[in-house]
Amino acid sequence: MMWHPATQVLTKDDQAFDPATLSWAVQSVGPEAGEPVTPGEALRRLAETHRLRRVPIGIIGPREATAEQCRIAEAMGLELARHGLQMLCGGKSGVMEAACRGHARGGGLPIGLLPDEEWHAANPHVAIPIATGIGPARNAIIARACLVLVAIGGGVGTLSEMALGLQFSRLVLALADAPHIDGVARLASVDEVLERIAGRILSAV
Amino acid sequence: MMWHPATQVLTKDDQAFDPATLSWAVQSVGPEAGEPVTPGEALRRLAETHRLRRVPIGIIGPREATAEQCRIAEAMGLELARHGLQMLCGGKSGVMEAACRGHARGGGLPIGLLPDEEWHAANPHVAIPIATGIGPARNAIIARACLVLVAIGGGVGTLSEMALGLQFSRLVLALADAPHIDGVARLASVDEVLERIAGRILSAV
Amino acid sequence: MMWHPATQVLTKDDQAFDPATLSWAVQSVGPEAGEPVTPGEALRRLAETHRLRRVPIGIIGPREATAEQCRIAEAMGLELARHGLQMLCGGKSGVMEAACRGHARGGGLPIGLLPDEEWHAANPHVAIPIATGIGPARNAIIARACLVLVAIGGGVGTLSEMALGLQFSRLVLALADAPHIDGVARLASVDEVLERIAGRILSAV
Amino acid sequence: MMWHPATQVLTKDDQAFDPATLSWAVQSVGPEAGEPVTPGEALRRLAETHRLRRVPIGIIGPREATAEQCRIAEAMGLELARHGLQMLCGGKSGVMEAACRGHARGGGLPIGLLPDEEWHAANPHVAIPIATGIGPARNAIIARACLVLVAIGGGVGTLSEMALGLQFSRLVLALADAPHIDGVARLASVDEVLERIAGRILSAV
Repeated sequence: MMWHPATQVLTKDDQAFDPATLSWAVQSVGPEAGEPVTPGEALRRLAETHRLRRVPIGIIGPREATAEQCRIAEAMGLELARHGLQMLCGGKSGVMEAACRGHARGGGLPIGLLPDEEWHAANPHVAIPIATGIGPARNAIIARACLVLVAIGGGVGTLSEMALGLQFSRLVLALADAPHIDGVARLASVDEVLERIAGRILSAV
Repeated sequence: MMWHPATQVLTKDDQAFDPATLSWAVQSVGPEAGEPVTPGEALRRLAETHRLRRVPIGIIGPREATAEQCRIAEAMGLELARHGLQMLCGGKSGVMEAACRGHARGGGLPIGLLPDEEWHAANPHVAIPIATGIGPARNAIIARACLVLVAIGGGVGTLSEMALGLQFSRLVLALADAPHIDGVARLASVDEVLERIAGRILSAV
Repeated sequence: MMWHPATQVLTKDDQAFDPATLSWAVQSVGPEAGEPVTPGEALRRLAETHRLRRVPIGIIGPREATAEQCRIAEAMGLELARHGLQMLCGGKSGVMEAACRGHARGGGLPIGLLPDEEWHAANPHVAIPIATGIGPARNAIIARACLVLVAIGGGVGTLSEMALGLQFSRLVLALADAPHIDGVARLASVDEVLERIAGRILSAV
Repeated sequence: MMWHPATQVLTKDDQAFDPATLSWAVQSVGPEAGEPVTPGEALRRLAETHRLRRVPIGIIGPREATAEQCRIAEAMGLELARHGLQMLCGGKSGVMEAACRGHARGGGLPIGLLPDEEWHAANPHVAIPIATGIGPARNAIIARACLVLVAIGGGVGTLSEMALGLQFSRLVLALADAPHIDGVARLASVDEVLERIAGRILSAV
């Protein structure tokens, strides 16, 4: 993958990446020199120069979270914002609130897809509260709506979102002490997660 | 637990079981002799003599099922019918179809809670097709609607139903090669499953 | 449409009706004489002699209902049972409870598709409680699941079910003082409703 | 209602409006002079100076829309953005696409709550695609999530969203030739709609 600073275009072989559709298309690229980038770097360059289509990236985890889980969730939310990515979560307390705090701090507009009937039930850092009124069944919509789901800690609620994510062919990643399921990569750091998210976004053909 | 054949009443200490509400209530029971019964036996006696409230028992499993999974599913559906229990499943092929076949053979009226928009999408053994039109999100409703979920084989779809069941505090049981999750008892036979289901129904206070 | 008493077959031109699939298929019918029947009569004959596929017929209406609305709902539920039809409703009080009472009295097994998280929230006449846990959004599933929706009285909740029914191409009928919408036939009696339901079931090709 | 330009505070009697919670709270306001404003003007001033909580305002209408409906939808989406309001719609073509085009042109980030399983099904002007995978049942979530629903044209699909909105106690407004329902105000212009939306947001106590 090559980044072309002058034209602000990301290329791969004879294709260029379109940030609006998150897809590659054949495009004649001038002779301008490019520099090789990792998916994560490519995403950062795109975020600085373009508006990426805001397909949500989900952060999932428990309401009752440990300090460590909250620390990781806040860092994850922050980094998503810095990479120009739209965060979506369940909009409640614990891991969700920490993720929203971080995302908002990074300039993002965190979406909270609430189980509740009214938007007031969102945590104070949710920028865009979406009250569904369907209770925990909203987990199925979170799993469907997100391109990638990042689990941080969590019990059976988080497990159900992870399993629904796999069922819907989403990329599901686990950080910290998230439940273990076959098909879910367990990663050690926020940076690794970002690299995997970038890989998913940039591999979409 | 004591079964009183003459009055057809199930008692425990000074309480009698009400099949309409699936609950125990204090009731003066005559001096008539009773015989001790296991939960499974108690359920069979009640089914022969009363109409139990038809709170669904779910059978969940994959569309593409092995011959062994289908054999077990059919036996499970049949035994639920023989015990006067209402079966509910996803209404499609594989484990679901086998379970419906068995349940219908036992005189039951299997319910298929379909992901599809029209009832014709049900397998031919579904007696009561309920088209939801909400796709695989209907798994969340299956998990909510059932008192007990019995998983037979299955991949991520079944896993998501199991996890949702745990999230909703349902009793979740695994037969055959169902996915493993903490909190789910793995049982070896249809009889053991029935004994556990009977225990759940008869322990409801 | 002709009913053949000896063979218990319903015919139309050179086709016979299959109660299991609610569809017509070309079939050579013997020379046995038949008698002309209306759709309603045909349905009654089929119900006496066969098991019709239990695709639900919905009764919708308010929790706070007038005595007259309840009287009509109970009669409607009863007649559905007498015609071998499966009733489904929202499972709560008012029109829903009256419809369940009538349906159960006629030997039916009324289904209550509840907004609640637990089955205990059903009215006492619901034979098969299905807790959805998704709140009033369950109206969309009632509208989808039923072949025909019969509105009896009602306010905006009933109106939303009627509108969803039309959106899903269901036959929507209004009795008593149900809200008025274009595309909904307002009928004067339970008998007229049954004749229309029978027409819908028997016209399905 | 008084707008205080120096402190950028909106007051009513002895209360000040908090844009983050969309609520009024008692607050001592200095002797600085204020100028009387209508709700619509107040909203514009707040939008220029603060970040309002982005509780969605819904635009609903048909996929197959007339040129006039599209013109109104685009103007409506644009004005919502100019007033700092978050638009949400069904994300498909016709009225929805026109509303998204206008909203994006005004600097907004239109949300499309899609019936589909994948985000690619959104119209090209949707900035934040949310794939629900639950088909037209997503109408119930649109109606729940929005503070106000503005119907522009439409048939039974729009009617169902309007009725669900009323059922969930949302303010439902009709523009152009939207279906008529009791309880829905039919307004003549985008300006009138904005004044009503502003009144709803600013009256929330």
